[in-house]
Amino acid sequence: MTDAPAPDALSHDLTSRDTYRYWTRDVVRFQDLDRVGHVNNIAFAVYCETGRVEFLEHVMPGSVSGHGVGWVIVKLTVDFRAQAHYPGGVEIGTHVLKIGRSSCILGTGLFKDGVCFGTAESVCVYTDIKASKGVALSDEHKAALQVYA
Amino acid sequence: MTDAPAPDALSHDLTSRDTYRYWTRDVVRFQDLDRVGHVNNIAFAVYCETGRVEFLEHVMPGSVSGHGVGWVIVKLTVDFRAQAHYPGGVEIGTHVLKIGRSSCILGTGLFKDGVCFGTAESVCVYTDIKASKGVALSDEHKAALQVYA
Amino acid sequence: MTDAPAPDALSHDLTSRDTYRYWTRDVVRFQDLDRVGHVNNIAFAVYCETGRVEFLEHVMPGSVSGHGVGWVIVKLTVDFRAQAHYPGGVEIGTHVLKIGRSSCILGTGLFKDGVCFGTAESVCVYTDIKASKGVALSDEHKAALQVYA
Amino acid sequence: MTDAPAPDALSHDLTSRDTYRYWTRDVVRFQDLDRVGHVNNIAFAVYCETGRVEFLEHVMPGSVSGHGVGWVIVKLTVDFRAQAHYPGGVEIGTHVLKIGRSSCILGTGLFKDGVCFGTAESVCVYTDIKASKGVALSDEHKAALQVYA
Repeated sequence: MTDAPAPDALSHDLTSRDTYRYWTRDVVRFQDLDRVGHVNNIAFAVYCETGRVEFLEHVMPGSVSGHGVGWVIVKLTVDFRAQAHYPGGVEIGTHVLKIGRSSCILGTGLFKDGVCFGTAESVCVYTDIKASKGVALSDEHKAALQVYA
Repeated sequence: MTDAPAPDALSHDLTSRDTYRYWTRDVVRFQDLDRVGHVNNIAFAVYCETGRVEFLEHVMPGSVSGHGVGWVIVKLTVDFRAQAHYPGGVEIGTHVLKIGRSSCILGTGLFKDGVCFGTAESVCVYTDIKASKGVALSDEHKAALQVYA
Repeated sequence: MTDAPAPDALSHDLTSRDTYRYWTRDVVRFQDLDRVGHVNNIAFAVYCETGRVEFLEHVMPGSVSGHGVGWVIVKLTVDFRAQAHYPGGVEIGTHVLKIGRSSCILGTGLFKDGVCFGTAESVCVYTDIKASKGVALSDEHKAALQVYA
Repeated sequence: MTDAPAPDALSHDLTSRDTYRYWTRDVVRFQDLDRVGHVNNIAFAVYCETGRVEFLEHVMPGSVSGHGVGWVIVKLTVDFRAQAHYPGGVEIGTHVLKIGRSSCILGTGLFKDGVCFGTAESVCVYTDIKASKGVALSDEHKAALQVYA
């Protein structure tokens, strides 16, 4: 996994809705709340997964099946930017920050009522799951990702 | 909590959409899947909570705050009726099966793509949370619940 | 699944530690707490799963793999008997309440600091997962379950 | 929160057990598994929370109550280093990487069967929760954290 690009110099503003062209919807569940009635930190990571998986399945159908060759997350960075409350919907924007030989970095923005309450970067490696080894992305794969870069 | 009605002789068909006049929406999350790619049994209980809390807050605002006097679940019965799959939305119907002195039984139907994949009964007691003691429902409360019985 | 035994006339006291000869351990996670700082209702169902899966794997190794023929839960009833708090361990007792042709009913007791805070009954069907059809338990299977009845 | 130290130049080896003097134990739950039978990425974040909360309550009792002044996580970075499997225990090491005016960075190591399967850095800010504003750590607080630096 040495070819995973470092998440540096990624100059996009992940807190701005304008950054995103791919959107996923989730719902704040009562179950997502912590002891103070705020959305808890784990739920932020779940919303990120919701957006990441739907996006990767959209650009490369079948690539999150968990079998054969598919995407594996190797690093997740979440910035908790504001409190979020129940009830209501979550809008999850996904943007491709970087495309590597066998990996990509996705940027995520979490929005509720128009406010960005969290952002994230996910380093994902396209992996031969049994061999636990990165697999080069084809030109078609790269082009499909590039649409959202 | 001795006044909690027993969930017997509840003759409504919880698998039928016609039973429900109150609906809540949730979303099947990738995180809800088990090792076979089906919605796992815990997620069924979470969807039931989603519907139950929204319903109780709708008919008695503030009653699920967790402070003062509010609803506490004392018994949950879930029937796992079919497999449910990712992705898609979940429609959650809530129906009042029984109203007691300080309690109620809610019936829940979980639907995806028009198919009922689970039903549940929740015995809820209106409780003085600090004293851990049931509190009689007012006539107004009972009338608000009765609308969905 | 018509041969699933009804959970009636199950005269065991699921709130007593003496009922159980099979024990599993879990831990109350900070993540299990609700808005009042109590263990939330979903966590009760998770602890039940923890005990149920470990027990079924113990008596019939490989039977919860999710592939081929294995156990599927068709009904779960949870009684929320007391509040449980963070931090600390959970002791989960499992007892076989009934053995059917292709099913069993497991009784579960959840204990913390010696106090029973929840009990449950799980109706499980031994199932050909692809065909979604019950499969008769062998005499060996029944004998393995009977040890804990 | 401008005084939150950047997680740079943190030269400790979070993958080594020798780095840690504070340890928390959790358990891999069946519920933590993904569709391939591996511990899913969200569970990594949950284990990190388990360790982080217990550590902060240990060094500053009451500081994770969610009321008044307490610790709030503002950034979480998780490195997914290996697959982890069910069943078994998780050992969670916590190390103080940096102490700021009103914040700290905690390093976390997740171990199973002696193998490090994940590491994390958590930027935590000591916060007046109602005012949503950082509060300076006292010398006593800093000394308590310093023990594990």
